[in-house]
Amino acid sequence: MGSGKQPLLKRHFDRELQQLKKRILSMGGIVEDLIVRSIEALRSRDRSLVAEAMRIEEAIDAEEVEIEEDCLKLIALYQPVAGDLRFIAAVLKINSELERMGDLAVHIAERARDLSAFGDIHVPTDLRRMGTDVQSMVRRSLESLVNQDSELALQVLQADNTVDEHHRRMFDFVAEQVQADPTQTMPLLHLLTASRYLERIADAATNIAEDVYYLAEGEIIRHRAELAE
Amino acid sequence: MGSGKQPLLKRHFDRELQQLKKRILSMGGIVEDLIVRSIEALRSRDRSLVAEAMRIEEAIDAEEVEIEEDCLKLIALYQPVAGDLRFIAAVLKINSELERMGDLAVHIAERARDLSAFGDIHVPTDLRRMGTDVQSMVRRSLESLVNQDSELALQVLQADNTVDEHHRRMFDFVAEQVQADPTQTMPLLHLLTASRYLERIADAATNIAEDVYYLAEGEIIRHRAELAE
Repeated sequence: MGSGKQPLLKRHFDRELQQLKKRILSMGGIVEDLIVRSIEALRSRDRSLVAEAMRIEEAIDAEEVEIEEDCLKLIALYQPVAGDLRFIAAVLKINSELERMGDLAVHIAERARDLSAFGDIHVPTDLRRMGTDVQSMVRRSLESLVNQDSELALQVLQADNTVDEHHRRMFDFVAEQVQADPTQTMPLLHLLTASRYLERIADAATNIAEDVYYLAEGEIIRHRAELAE
Repeated sequence: MGSGKQPLLKRHFDRELQQLKKRILSMGGIVEDLIVRSIEALRSRDRSLVAEAMRIEEAIDAEEVEIEEDCLKLIALYQPVAGDLRFIAAVLKINSELERMGDLAVHIAERARDLSAFGDIHVPTDLRRMGTDVQSMVRRSLESLVNQDSELALQVLQADNTVDEHHRRMFDFVAEQVQADPTQTMPLLHLLTASRYLERIADAATNIAEDVYYLAEGEIIRHRAELAE
């Protein structure tokens, strides 16, 4: 709110800000759920899970549009400044990240469909563990936002290193397996793609955590290589 | 500007908005340049180009932070509404996309370094053509923003299909080559990764074009599959 605070207007604004927080958290929950289902689709190669993932993604898309409208309305109506404005600007960006994660999760599910054209292929433990790690990063990045918890945001940044490590191992695993049995090249490349999508979801969670850290500490870390690498 | 327009304030605001446009265009130019250099690094595997790419990326990172500050200051100081607010909100998001493109271009340059560990490897024409296409998408997406040109934005969306097609061909090319000569698996996978980074830069340009279209036409197209696919 601007400097000339009007108690009633301020109360309205605070209430709407709370609703915005709830809304973005709930969208985060849906995205998390979608990630879990996509990994499950990859493991089980159950086509009905792929269709379901697509339906969930549509709901996420619609929600993104509405949250963006909410943010712009809040700015236009209450003309917030300083921390409040910064928070809403962060939500605008985080909203886009969540929608992007939804897209990526669906791409993973689509790879499950591609994989189902091949015979049985083992989904390495690394990939499944990566899925769990990424899901936890998404949850913690959103929690760090609503609680303005910069410590938790830092944890997300650190977790990203682990995910990158998993992905590097997947890269080596695929390279090795392809050389051992070139006839498996296509399904193995699909697995590698799924791993890369997971890595990108982790990157999006990292973007959120970096914004949260900036919001809480007023310090830009998104470009501090020593933390991110 | 709000409904109670003050001519002087309005003039100040318009001038600052013009400067913001110039600034984001100029950042776009730097990002374009970085993409060109990264592709050149991939082709020539000249390590000095990789170091240069990293320096340019640092400048982009610093610029992103300042543009974001400019946007928030403009909102707080002039309390714009309707189209102006929507424009600034779009610049906030587009600014992040540009920074992301810079990161991806550097990742491409890094793959040039990885590739230099291997002997001579042919960089397929598809990949180089993809580089030119992506660079043009970035330029046109920014032009469509500053001129609020929704037709140009649509062209960018269409160009993304071509880039996706290039990437699919690269995927098939790599799969084929790996099977023909498994000893080349590692360098070929690095090439595929570079192709994927280019595809992601094209996706970021598409995100910009979608925002521009929305800004100009008031119509959400980012989730209209028939256009994007």
